[in-house]
Amino acid sequence: MQHNLFESLEKNYHEMVEIRRYLHQHPEVSFKEYKTAEYIANYYKNLGIELQTNVGGNGIVAKIHGGRPGKTVALRADFDALPIQDEKDVPYKSTVPGVMHACGHDGHTATLLVLAKSLNEVKDELEGSIVLIHQHAEEYAPGGAIAMIEAGCLDGVDVIFGTHLWATGPTGAILYREGPIMAAADRFEITVKGSGGHGAHPHTTKDAIVIASQIVMNLQQIVSRRVDPIHSAVVSVGSFVSENPFNVIADSAKLGGTVRTFDEEVRAQIEAEIERIVKGTCLQTDSSYSYKYHRGYPAVVNHKDETELLKEVANNLPDVKAVVECPPQMGGEDFAYYLQHVKGTFFFTGASPVNPENVYPHHHPKFDIDENAMLIAAKTLGSATLTYLQASTKSEEKVTS
Amino acid sequence: MQHNLFESLEKNYHEMVEIRRYLHQHPEVSFKEYKTAEYIANYYKNLGIELQTNVGGNGIVAKIHGGRPGKTVALRADFDALPIQDEKDVPYKSTVPGVMHACGHDGHTATLLVLAKSLNEVKDELEGSIVLIHQHAEEYAPGGAIAMIEAGCLDGVDVIFGTHLWATGPTGAILYREGPIMAAADRFEITVKGSGGHGAHPHTTKDAIVIASQIVMNLQQIVSRRVDPIHSAVVSVGSFVSENPFNVIADSAKLGGTVRTFDEEVRAQIEAEIERIVKGTCLQTDSSYSYKYHRGYPAVVNHKDETELLKEVANNLPDVKAVVECPPQMGGEDFAYYLQHVKGTFFFTGASPVNPENVYPHHHPKFDIDENAMLIAAKTLGSATLTYLQASTKSEEKVTS
Amino acid sequence: MQHNLFESLEKNYHEMVEIRRYLHQHPEVSFKEYKTAEYIANYYKNLGIELQTNVGGNGIVAKIHGGRPGKTVALRADFDALPIQDEKDVPYKSTVPGVMHACGHDGHTATLLVLAKSLNEVKDELEGSIVLIHQHAEEYAPGGAIAMIEAGCLDGVDVIFGTHLWATGPTGAILYREGPIMAAADRFEITVKGSGGHGAHPHTTKDAIVIASQIVMNLQQIVSRRVDPIHSAVVSVGSFVSENPFNVIADSAKLGGTVRTFDEEVRAQIEAEIERIVKGTCLQTDSSYSYKYHRGYPAVVNHKDETELLKEVANNLPDVKAVVECPPQMGGEDFAYYLQHVKGTFFFTGASPVNPENVYPHHHPKFDIDENAMLIAAKTLGSATLTYLQASTKSEEKVTS
Amino acid sequence: MQHNLFESLEKNYHEMVEIRRYLHQHPEVSFKEYKTAEYIANYYKNLGIELQTNVGGNGIVAKIHGGRPGKTVALRADFDALPIQDEKDVPYKSTVPGVMHACGHDGHTATLLVLAKSLNEVKDELEGSIVLIHQHAEEYAPGGAIAMIEAGCLDGVDVIFGTHLWATGPTGAILYREGPIMAAADRFEITVKGSGGHGAHPHTTKDAIVIASQIVMNLQQIVSRRVDPIHSAVVSVGSFVSENPFNVIADSAKLGGTVRTFDEEVRAQIEAEIERIVKGTCLQTDSSYSYKYHRGYPAVVNHKDETELLKEVANNLPDVKAVVECPPQMGGEDFAYYLQHVKGTFFFTGASPVNPENVYPHHHPKFDIDENAMLIAAKTLGSATLTYLQASTKSEEKVTS
Repeated sequence: MQHNLFESLEKNYHEMVEIRRYLHQHPEVSFKEYKTAEYIANYYKNLGIELQTNVGGNGIVAKIHGGRPGKTVALRADFDALPIQDEKDVPYKSTVPGVMHACGHDGHTATLLVLAKSLNEVKDELEGSIVLIHQHAEEYAPGGAIAMIEAGCLDGVDVIFGTHLWATGPTGAILYREGPIMAAADRFEITVKGSGGHGAHPHTTKDAIVIASQIVMNLQQIVSRRVDPIHSAVVSVGSFVSENPFNVIADSAKLGGTVRTFDEEVRAQIEAEIERIVKGTCLQTDSSYSYKYHRGYPAVVNHKDETELLKEVANNLPDVKAVVECPPQMGGEDFAYYLQHVKGTFFFTGASPVNPENVYPHHHPKFDIDENAMLIAAKTLGSATLTYLQASTKSEEKVTS
Repeated sequence: MQHNLFESLEKNYHEMVEIRRYLHQHPEVSFKEYKTAEYIANYYKNLGIELQTNVGGNGIVAKIHGGRPGKTVALRADFDALPIQDEKDVPYKSTVPGVMHACGHDGHTATLLVLAKSLNEVKDELEGSIVLIHQHAEEYAPGGAIAMIEAGCLDGVDVIFGTHLWATGPTGAILYREGPIMAAADRFEITVKGSGGHGAHPHTTKDAIVIASQIVMNLQQIVSRRVDPIHSAVVSVGSFVSENPFNVIADSAKLGGTVRTFDEEVRAQIEAEIERIVKGTCLQTDSSYSYKYHRGYPAVVNHKDETELLKEVANNLPDVKAVVECPPQMGGEDFAYYLQHVKGTFFFTGASPVNPENVYPHHHPKFDIDENAMLIAAKTLGSATLTYLQASTKSEEKVTS
Repeated sequence: MQHNLFESLEKNYHEMVEIRRYLHQHPEVSFKEYKTAEYIANYYKNLGIELQTNVGGNGIVAKIHGGRPGKTVALRADFDALPIQDEKDVPYKSTVPGVMHACGHDGHTATLLVLAKSLNEVKDELEGSIVLIHQHAEEYAPGGAIAMIEAGCLDGVDVIFGTHLWATGPTGAILYREGPIMAAADRFEITVKGSGGHGAHPHTTKDAIVIASQIVMNLQQIVSRRVDPIHSAVVSVGSFVSENPFNVIADSAKLGGTVRTFDEEVRAQIEAEIERIVKGTCLQTDSSYSYKYHRGYPAVVNHKDETELLKEVANNLPDVKAVVECPPQMGGEDFAYYLQHVKGTFFFTGASPVNPENVYPHHHPKFDIDENAMLIAAKTLGSATLTYLQASTKSEEKVTS
Repeated sequence: MQHNLFESLEKNYHEMVEIRRYLHQHPEVSFKEYKTAEYIANYYKNLGIELQTNVGGNGIVAKIHGGRPGKTVALRADFDALPIQDEKDVPYKSTVPGVMHACGHDGHTATLLVLAKSLNEVKDELEGSIVLIHQHAEEYAPGGAIAMIEAGCLDGVDVIFGTHLWATGPTGAILYREGPIMAAADRFEITVKGSGGHGAHPHTTKDAIVIASQIVMNLQQIVSRRVDPIHSAVVSVGSFVSENPFNVIADSAKLGGTVRTFDEEVRAQIEAEIERIVKGTCLQTDSSYSYKYHRGYPAVVNHKDETELLKEVANNLPDVKAVVECPPQMGGEDFAYYLQHVKGTFFFTGASPVNPENVYPHHHPKFDIDENAMLIAAKTLGSATLTYLQASTKSEEKVTS
């Protein structure tokens, strides 16, 4: 069956590229992906595949029922773009000013659509079902995953696989990791409320810029002194705003930043430590503050057996040249939520453009991928799906026999 | 003669109030005071007083020639307003949105115009001449004083007197000080040029917010450790701007602030120390910076004999209830330039509104003055003028006899 | 053969305890372990085992030649004590004031001596040889390992195993880890050379305490901002000394601290970053500094196959209740050097005292171990040795057959 | 009378030098000046001058009753030495190891003894009385002045004069100042109580060195931000001690320092601000602290009329080449207490050694004075005394006539 699936995928590769390029030219930002959702829905309608739209927002869930009984595998692709101006010089460049598929979600969608088409062709042989989750709004917390799960997209699902095309990994590589593979990505906001005044009279004020600067410095100690050095963690202040005339002492200052962790205890610790630092620093000048900590996506924590399966599957694919255990990535992904509900694994598919000059980090205005990686991703996901379903059936048989 | 002058001033007090309120309703910001200048010029024209317009910009210089030979006294009043929204609830509230006489320059102008009118009435008895300097643009460096001096407003002048209505000093008080009475007020801008990146990957960046925060903290040592504690000095960072998405590490950060000093050596020392701190801090992360130090007005340094004269004159005025040596003020004033060219003194005339609830600091949206203070200011300036001219004539006589 | 070995070990367990307690009462600090070395040497002499003394210092190397040909396994135990006052209330308390076996090396030695005795009993069956490395001076850099290796202790050795009795891990546990298991432990010294003076005249000085405090704060950024968050690293300033009369400003200040890393690149990066921070901070006050970075032991990096073997062996031992992959430890060990020359693995043997009140961290004045752990350590090391030799012979046979 | 007094002083100048050199060779530290007190007492006994010993400790009070009625003038000289090793190469070098007159109190005593002798010679003409206060323990808080005042040394005294020989002012100069001339000199001690541990495990500790360093940095803001810039103030941390092995994280750290102020409100503000900073900083890591603030001598605040008198007297002395208003000095003096009880003034008498190479700051191991300055000091004090008594009598006569 895998042989047929792969032949179909290879045959349909050109369509994959077309879809990806069409989406690349018509990007839509998170939570506003109306036309992209319509495009995806139409694709399934044309194939006559069972379909649900507006799942938890703009989400789409399609389902392929196999010809034989068995487990249910979910495959997920996200489809939102970013508020970034496309600066590439390619024919398929974004046509929407200030919006761009700068993270490869167009490729994810094209991969999953064509994989669905090919799986649909072999469905009679399938020992179980396949749920195709097209998720909106991965880029912007709270993300689309939670809402889609609440809307039931995982109902009846036994396992989930997902991949991210990875522009900084070589095409041909599959990067896996058991346990935490992507970080919890949280956001915080601190407003220091001092007491302003004339730049010449500091003693009549509580200088909010000095207080906030002190907070920035003191926050460095969270990672350097308070978190167990065995655990990875990042606390970054990305924004510091207190704009005033030069001869004034600032009344208030706003800090905004992000926290990345892989461990829930460390995450909770940092949330508390930030406040302790802010509180103590403000106490020194008897000033006040407000502090908000917004939990973003939790860490993506891959399950052991499913990661093992993925690794074996990848090792058996001739298109895959390297199967590599990657270090955990500090970026966030709301795929994390699916793995809190069902078993599964999330992996990276190397997708570096052939010309090294075209390799840019994700979210960069010149970001692009090697489209060949989509075929590798499709084969890996497809093979994992078939392998899982067959193995489940066999072990089921053993149990029942 | 002083008796006649004072009678005239009292008689014309209502006009003084009218002028001040008219100007209060029609404020114009620094370097744009076209109509205010026209208003002043017309006042002198109607009185037939000799007049120069457009002196160094919008400045006006009028001259009253006394009936007898003698020295020349200059009196100065500034007339620009501020880009502040008037929030007072009074009939004479500003009619110009976002512009307001929030520092009392309307009162200075009304005082000097009516004083000129009254002095003009007694001019036959005057032993010398009086130059009336109506200066534009005191609020905004480089200020109007330099240009007016370059245009010759001090030519032939022997001494200059000026006052500032002072809303936080009680009406009836004259506040004097020999030596430095107002600070040199400079401005600096620092741009830290780090290297930005993703909030999750600090090690690939040079975090401009951390660097700039460190600079803010380190700048505190200039006053605490490096300036001789006997000297007063202030270094304030009033603005810290590095606005970015929360999950980004900042590429650059801009700091703006002010330096206040009374001593030229300390001023030069601080200009150099700031750069040394910025340079050393940036070196730690191999980042770069730009640093601009803009010298504003120098310190207002009152001359000894003229301050002594002012003090005696004030002590002899029944309207003046208290003559107080005040500590130096950290604010700046371009009256400083006049005192670099001719002898003279600058003093404060207490002008607190009667109702303590209406007392607001200068530059506050609810700033107001007690208009009675204008009469006291006019009498003090007038008396100082007459006293100086008479004393000069006498000492001249002694010398020649 | 393992059966015989284990029986012998159990039979000799009381001797193991006696030896350990004797050594516990007669501790000697690093590089001064003359009598301990003599004690060890005598033990081997009495057994008639081949022996080398003064290997690279006070080191002892014994060798058991098996009855059959095969590979050579080295087992290592360290035997130095610490300059700490024993505060335990036990009969076998240290009799040397201010010196104590506060890290369990007495137990390591007792374990290895008795294991050697038991292995010697079964030597006829042994397919290869066993080298018993009793290393002096593990606690004090540069340590004894380097010198012993240079003196040839690893000549002809194919593999090395070592363990550390671990008072904070439960007795019955074996803690293993492939790759880095203990950190590189380096030391640095910074002397800030400012310019002192009277406490009342900061402007005439370069305040060394302020500069050094700033350095301490800035060093926090190395871990928080500059090291890849995926890598564990610690930079700790343990000592800050600038002792002066209260009314003086300090001329100089001395900082001392430690750096812990698992990766050689990160290690080199931190060595350089510290200097950059010190240099930049000193530049701010035009002061000078001296900086010394002493590389201590490198990270202990366990080899894959040998760690796998150890894990399997431990899993097969009934005395071992738990075989746990442990996180890397930030402490240092000069076992690291052996693993740079031959394959092998280093593991922890849980040795928590039964009464939880007696559990103290290593290097604590009340540190003690559960002596039963020595038997578990001996069995694990013994089993690993036999297993390795047997496996090697078999695979050899395969190759030659 | 002044003519006679000055002739006598000139005649006795050699004795003055002898006394000073004898005392210089036999220095005694604060509160231990037994033999010096005996020496002084014997001098007065030999002259038959009324004498009290052990006044408030080792203090001596002598009294000369004038031949005519009048006011009572007190003159004060301190006589304690310092725990400093004399490093000068002169015949009159200290003979006591580690103890030295490094602040000129030997000269003060010689000056006052000989001045007393000469005043005693003209006592019949004196219109009033003279109290000679020889004070012990000026160098070491709480100082001798308080105890001597409590013991009654100022009873009946109308005015007090005192001077300090000043090695960094040119011989021939008298330096005066109305109002604050010397600072309040306080001492503080801060102990940060964190929680120590192994240098590799910061997360298990509360790093006392990081906390204390942060306190040092934050203390800079007291002078830079919180004290009115018009007021002079100094906060210096002179000692930072946390000595530990390099691989330990510090449990505690001790800071010691000094605060200098001229204004009691600022003094109280700083005492409170330090604690606020310490408290807030410790709160950030939930650590604790102890804080002690020891008030030393208050500021020496000279009275107006007496300073005016001193200035005029000095201007009339041919030996005095310059009478200069000096800036306030940040050093402390317990003369401050006398001026809280009676009117008076304290001034500096320039005493720079002739050879500029021999000019060292006070408290320096090579400190020395120009002995000629003693004669100038004696004449200035003597003249001030006579002038005050004569003026008082005259104004008394006016009142009574």
